[in-house]
Amino acid sequence: MRAVQVVGYHQDLQMHEVDVPEATGPFDVIVRIGGAGVCRTDLHILEGQWEEKSGVTLPYTIGHENAGWVHAVGSAVTNVREGDKVIVHPLITCGLCRACRTGDDVHCETSQFPGINTAGGYAEYLKTSARSVVPIDDSLEPADVAALADAGLTAYHAAAKAARRLTPRDTCVVIGAGGLGHIGIQVMKALSPAQLVVVDRNPEALKLALSIGADHGVVAEGKQVEEVLEITHGLGAEVVIDFVGEGGSTAEGLAMTRQAGDYHVVGYGENVDVPTIDLISAEKNIIGNLVGSYNDLCDLMALAARGAVTLHTQKYALDDFQTAISDLDAGRVRGRAILTP
Amino acid sequence: MRAVQVVGYHQDLQMHEVDVPEATGPFDVIVRIGGAGVCRTDLHILEGQWEEKSGVTLPYTIGHENAGWVHAVGSAVTNVREGDKVIVHPLITCGLCRACRTGDDVHCETSQFPGINTAGGYAEYLKTSARSVVPIDDSLEPADVAALADAGLTAYHAAAKAARRLTPRDTCVVIGAGGLGHIGIQVMKALSPAQLVVVDRNPEALKLALSIGADHGVVAEGKQVEEVLEITHGLGAEVVIDFVGEGGSTAEGLAMTRQAGDYHVVGYGENVDVPTIDLISAEKNIIGNLVGSYNDLCDLMALAARGAVTLHTQKYALDDFQTAISDLDAGRVRGRAILTP
Amino acid sequence: MRAVQVVGYHQDLQMHEVDVPEATGPFDVIVRIGGAGVCRTDLHILEGQWEEKSGVTLPYTIGHENAGWVHAVGSAVTNVREGDKVIVHPLITCGLCRACRTGDDVHCETSQFPGINTAGGYAEYLKTSARSVVPIDDSLEPADVAALADAGLTAYHAAAKAARRLTPRDTCVVIGAGGLGHIGIQVMKALSPAQLVVVDRNPEALKLALSIGADHGVVAEGKQVEEVLEITHGLGAEVVIDFVGEGGSTAEGLAMTRQAGDYHVVGYGENVDVPTIDLISAEKNIIGNLVGSYNDLCDLMALAARGAVTLHTQKYALDDFQTAISDLDAGRVRGRAILTP
Amino acid sequence: MRAVQVVGYHQDLQMHEVDVPEATGPFDVIVRIGGAGVCRTDLHILEGQWEEKSGVTLPYTIGHENAGWVHAVGSAVTNVREGDKVIVHPLITCGLCRACRTGDDVHCETSQFPGINTAGGYAEYLKTSARSVVPIDDSLEPADVAALADAGLTAYHAAAKAARRLTPRDTCVVIGAGGLGHIGIQVMKALSPAQLVVVDRNPEALKLALSIGADHGVVAEGKQVEEVLEITHGLGAEVVIDFVGEGGSTAEGLAMTRQAGDYHVVGYGENVDVPTIDLISAEKNIIGNLVGSYNDLCDLMALAARGAVTLHTQKYALDDFQTAISDLDAGRVRGRAILTP
Repeated sequence: MRAVQVVGYHQDLQMHEVDVPEATGPFDVIVRIGGAGVCRTDLHILEGQWEEKSGVTLPYTIGHENAGWVHAVGSAVTNVREGDKVIVHPLITCGLCRACRTGDDVHCETSQFPGINTAGGYAEYLKTSARSVVPIDDSLEPADVAALADAGLTAYHAAAKAARRLTPRDTCVVIGAGGLGHIGIQVMKALSPAQLVVVDRNPEALKLALSIGADHGVVAEGKQVEEVLEITHGLGAEVVIDFVGEGGSTAEGLAMTRQAGDYHVVGYGENVDVPTIDLISAEKNIIGNLVGSYNDLCDLMALAARGAVTLHTQKYALDDFQTAISDLDAGRVRGRAILTP
Repeated sequence: MRAVQVVGYHQDLQMHEVDVPEATGPFDVIVRIGGAGVCRTDLHILEGQWEEKSGVTLPYTIGHENAGWVHAVGSAVTNVREGDKVIVHPLITCGLCRACRTGDDVHCETSQFPGINTAGGYAEYLKTSARSVVPIDDSLEPADVAALADAGLTAYHAAAKAARRLTPRDTCVVIGAGGLGHIGIQVMKALSPAQLVVVDRNPEALKLALSIGADHGVVAEGKQVEEVLEITHGLGAEVVIDFVGEGGSTAEGLAMTRQAGDYHVVGYGENVDVPTIDLISAEKNIIGNLVGSYNDLCDLMALAARGAVTLHTQKYALDDFQTAISDLDAGRVRGRAILTP
Repeated sequence: MRAVQVVGYHQDLQMHEVDVPEATGPFDVIVRIGGAGVCRTDLHILEGQWEEKSGVTLPYTIGHENAGWVHAVGSAVTNVREGDKVIVHPLITCGLCRACRTGDDVHCETSQFPGINTAGGYAEYLKTSARSVVPIDDSLEPADVAALADAGLTAYHAAAKAARRLTPRDTCVVIGAGGLGHIGIQVMKALSPAQLVVVDRNPEALKLALSIGADHGVVAEGKQVEEVLEITHGLGAEVVIDFVGEGGSTAEGLAMTRQAGDYHVVGYGENVDVPTIDLISAEKNIIGNLVGSYNDLCDLMALAARGAVTLHTQKYALDDFQTAISDLDAGRVRGRAILTP
Repeated sequence: MRAVQVVGYHQDLQMHEVDVPEATGPFDVIVRIGGAGVCRTDLHILEGQWEEKSGVTLPYTIGHENAGWVHAVGSAVTNVREGDKVIVHPLITCGLCRACRTGDDVHCETSQFPGINTAGGYAEYLKTSARSVVPIDDSLEPADVAALADAGLTAYHAAAKAARRLTPRDTCVVIGAGGLGHIGIQVMKALSPAQLVVVDRNPEALKLALSIGADHGVVAEGKQVEEVLEITHGLGAEVVIDFVGEGGSTAEGLAMTRQAGDYHVVGYGENVDVPTIDLISAEKNIIGNLVGSYNDLCDLMALAARGAVTLHTQKYALDDFQTAISDLDAGRVRGRAILTP
């Protein structure tokens, strides 16, 4: 089959012919790819940022946002069968460690990450596990939802975790209305009755945010903290979700957070650097957020099935992988780029 | 009555004769002081550190850790009567704002803080509110529990909040076995089935910690992070409570925290300075902690009544206030210094 | 002022001239009534069902669903001022007992209930407490929201409590789409992403339920349990809220509840009668629900202010109280009947 | 190998020679039995009470409380290896359904129950799954902990669930200080700071309860509700755990429960029969409890390892199975009877 592979860092990806993976282990599932999201992390892989961390041997196939149809299953698989339409959770988890046994599989002690440290989905077929495939509604198409497998799942996880404490009198601020923030806003709207304020540098992104449920848009041009405080009667928001995490957003996010409130870090880049006395006197919490669990992905697919979460995609044939990568790098992709074999 | 007052910053306290306060407001409660804790914050007040923040007019009476007997009550007070033995919550709160209405009175929008921004308890009588007095068990004496009103209450609040997620398989690390940590260890032991590891520079403090319930003592002499990781099979602790907050303890505390774990800040001094990518990839939480609520103080008094929380005190007559202050400043106090009129 | 009073059980109400109440206590608030809801409980009072329980001395003014404008306040009131538009929480609570201090004021140990055991709101003025008045949005009118003070608040409380555990993959069944159910559906829609199934005997009520957010309507004509099981793939719903509580609805509601699910009792009349082995083998929970807290009422008013919860009302002049009562008794009221002085 | 089998209902068990089970499936684990608990449910099986429910084909091997050493493992097992000392969770669960994926494996949609509907542990070897074995501490012996696998696990589950809401000011009532109650008391003591009141008909059982941590013992000889109300200042207990569930204990348990409190059903026999108006006006909850999850069993083993939970056992050789059964039936067993091959 065709597979797009990393052959060296700081080099272009190459299309190779490789064997179709087989279901050799009892819980193996082979997925025929219907769509594979092209993510900024893929660019970072090519720049070598993940070389040491992943320890992967080159060449290997990248692509960690995948959806498609079940092609073959191992001997012990009971939850899906050939032909099922599925989205693929980005991790292969063990199912036996303490984290897996509590539903917190993202912190599995021995997980694998296809597309990062083993063969991914820029290909015709992907090998994953019964524990990683989520059947999707008939109304959804793999190429349309593939990008929800990682980017969307991260946004869902943070928004769902943050929403738990929100009541109709509370305010939630979303910093960054880009790819993740866009999903986060839709999820928050579905899960919480709080007032929703979105902060972004781009007035166009804010316009879109308002059209999908935000109550207020604040242009980040220097006065965003003051504006959020004004909207919240000088007190700040009970919850702030920061999908940016750089360029000063962490200090601003904390300043927008009310006493006893939660500041959620999702985007990353800079350091959180805050005096302990400020954390204490205002009793604020700084909450880290990783990608979502298998359960989170099931929940997100339930929202997608009823149209509560949608995502604009720009599709490319698998053979046009280089165009997709270049478009993403040059900022020419609106929504998410998807490779379709 | 006699009252020990701040007459100027960087000056010694002075004993003055002032009027006994009266219950003029409907919810006023006048407490005859049985014990007033001498706290390091009192030294900081004299150094002028609170001058700007409190905005208090000099001279005024300090002392924010108080217990005694009800002397007089306002017209609408129904929860205590003359002669009741009480401990005094450090804040006077409004009872009507959203925070007060949810039991989170510490974040009251219009609270007063006797001893900080209005007359405190280094005196014969103190004016407080019906909302601030907690009746104590017959078996407890005001002079013995006064220091639980603020220092103990802060430790209780952090430990109780942290304990909620702890199971018999979890580990809790307490950094700092001094005044607050000493209470925190006892509270954690009463509230949680987790393994308890205490970290301190002082081997004597660790010996005491082990005698009141800690399962492991780790001397902080450079290898404390490694030792905690070893005790926790390389994974770190589900909960770390940092009663120090300076001298590098925040970075160490975060390093001792397991993936998806909670690092609680109680002590303060330095900055928390952490890359966002570390918060995200390990999905850790940094939790701020202020003093406890009225309910927390009631809970702490229930533990004290059954002997589950005790505190060593060193008593001074009110007239010997300068000796108490000097002893505290010079490190000559074991446990907490208490003024008794 | 004019006040409609109970003069004897099994007798008609009578209009009397009585003194305007005065703010004598420090926390008293006198409200000029803008609307007073006429509730089925008022009929029950006249039938003598509350005679023993309330112990009230006749004659007294009834009416426990009130809203209006602040007319006068006691000396210690800081949260409202003359002229403020407010809805009135049905209880006057002490603010000092353990329940009040944790925000659970409904379980106050010494509460009063105007309209039930002291003078209520079928009058020009009502005496209540600073702890019971919730300022409402400029866009809301007292006569329009009065019925949310008790009936709406009960529905809000149950729905908000039930919603906490609901995810996008869950199902919530509401039994009874009458006055309370109507509010419950709107609240559940605002607070939860779950699929919402409504069961009622009346096809018209179901049509309305679907128009305000229900996903499925099930006519209760004998097969309702089977239909709910079919919608939930044979498993039952994670949450069932029973606004009926009689005519067999409790057994049906439990049968509709999934393993480890919650069956909420709101309506009442019959007994819950269930074998312990069924509760255990399916690990179901039966959850009681009383009226909501002050915080619940604030949250409900936030939803009302943004139009997320509305209620049809049929208004009557205070002097026409007998017509309102008769119409309610005869089933001629659509939505809620409101007296407006 | 030797195996004690059910050959017919209302007949004695018989010892048969059967094949040693083999690890044919990828997640199979064969355990060499070190101890198998003899449970009252085994008597009920012989009486035919489970015939219809289990649908098991006779003859089959009974015994559902098992512990021992890993004898062989399937190809995909990574969490245990030959020779490991383990306790066996009573269910074999799928690991893939929604319940399993959230850690709530007890509600697995396709579980098996060795000893009930497939071969159990009154034998030399037992076939179970990698998902069901919990490694135990070196200090514990299989024959000593076997009875914790089901009876102990049920008590742990209920106590741990109930403990979550308990604070130092709360009271927990345990009804029934027999086998399960005995474990429940120890667990509650380890997990919660609440006052613990135990109710039992047998003064000897109460003496034992007090020796393992109960604060009060109440003899159930007619005045038990009044006594509990007296201990709780007339208000009732925040939590009641009923390990009896028959002979009137459900009505008594609910009467002992405070407003807004939780009544936990664990023992079973009679019906819960309560007016809906009582559930509503006091806002009480009736909470069902089944056996604990895999995680619960891990937690319980952590408590057992440190000596916080112990159980008296009376051991019998496997060949003496009939004596054990007869002793249990005749009330001659103190603690739990254990078969040891």
